[in-house]
Amino acid sequence: MKRMPASAVAGVLAVALASVASAAELKPEDQIQYRQAGYSFMAWNMGKIKANLQGDFDQGQVEAAANAIAAIANSGMGALYGPGTDKDVGDVETAVKPEFFENMEEVGKVARNFIAAANNMAEVAAGGDQAAAQDAFGKLGQSCKSCHDKFRADD
Amino acid sequence: MKRMPASAVAGVLAVALASVASAAELKPEDQIQYRQAGYSFMAWNMGKIKANLQGDFDQGQVEAAANAIAAIANSGMGALYGPGTDKDVGDVETAVKPEFFENMEEVGKVARNFIAAANNMAEVAAGGDQAAAQDAFGKLGQSCKSCHDKFRADD
Repeated sequence: MKRMPASAVAGVLAVALASVASAAELKPEDQIQYRQAGYSFMAWNMGKIKANLQGDFDQGQVEAAANAIAAIANSGMGALYGPGTDKDVGDVETAVKPEFFENMEEVGKVARNFIAAANNMAEVAAGGDQAAAQDAFGKLGQSCKSCHDKFRADD
Repeated sequence: MKRMPASAVAGVLAVALASVASAAELKPEDQIQYRQAGYSFMAWNMGKIKANLQGDFDQGQVEAAANAIAAIANSGMGALYGPGTDKDVGDVETAVKPEFFENMEEVGKVARNFIAAANNMAEVAAGGDQAAAQDAFGKLGQSCKSCHDKFRADD
């Protein structure tokens, strides 16, 4: 696939952001805090799945945790990376690297991989097979890590 | 229904908390931050639904937002109100009133109402009827408010 010129990438991003009715109304610092809330809540649920895989496997708890992660992944968090959210705003700090905003094609790719892995985790969790859940959890963790490695400063 | 004696209520709560494998491993300050992350992320999604109801109605966005709220509501957040989370921990502040921990029967009732309203919102959003979504959103907002009025100090 040919790389899109930067102007086209910016255009795609602008359209994606404009599709979220509330994006224009949110201050950059609020966007940063909401996206961090999403990642934090997903981290809690990742921890629950991990604990279930390492200890007693409670299918209902794994399914609920996977559903939360998948629904957050599908909620359109791209809208929380609007203009002005590429750096700290007052005492609201962000760990996102500047490279994130300069590589929208790569960001789109890791985001789609993450959403696919989250949806797979939810589907597998509903099935209740622990070995399959372990595999899906490993893939989901990898999709988190691939973005952290590329675009998170403190990782 | 007869009121349960306090000791029985405590027992029910202990069982509910013990069912979450990771609860015992989480520090009180982490529990507070994770629960606040969940409420914050739900607030962002409530804002998106509200913006859609007041402006152009994008069914896909409303459905995604409603799914995020419902999945978070069903994720077992009760486990994030463990011992030591009834007051500020260091610089991690909580707005929960002490009454919350003294009225577990009432807490269970408002929690069940909230989960039912969140599930209803997700179901209605999937249907795509804007008037029905407006009604479901009003009921969901009321279920949030009823808990805030009773148990949140800064509201």
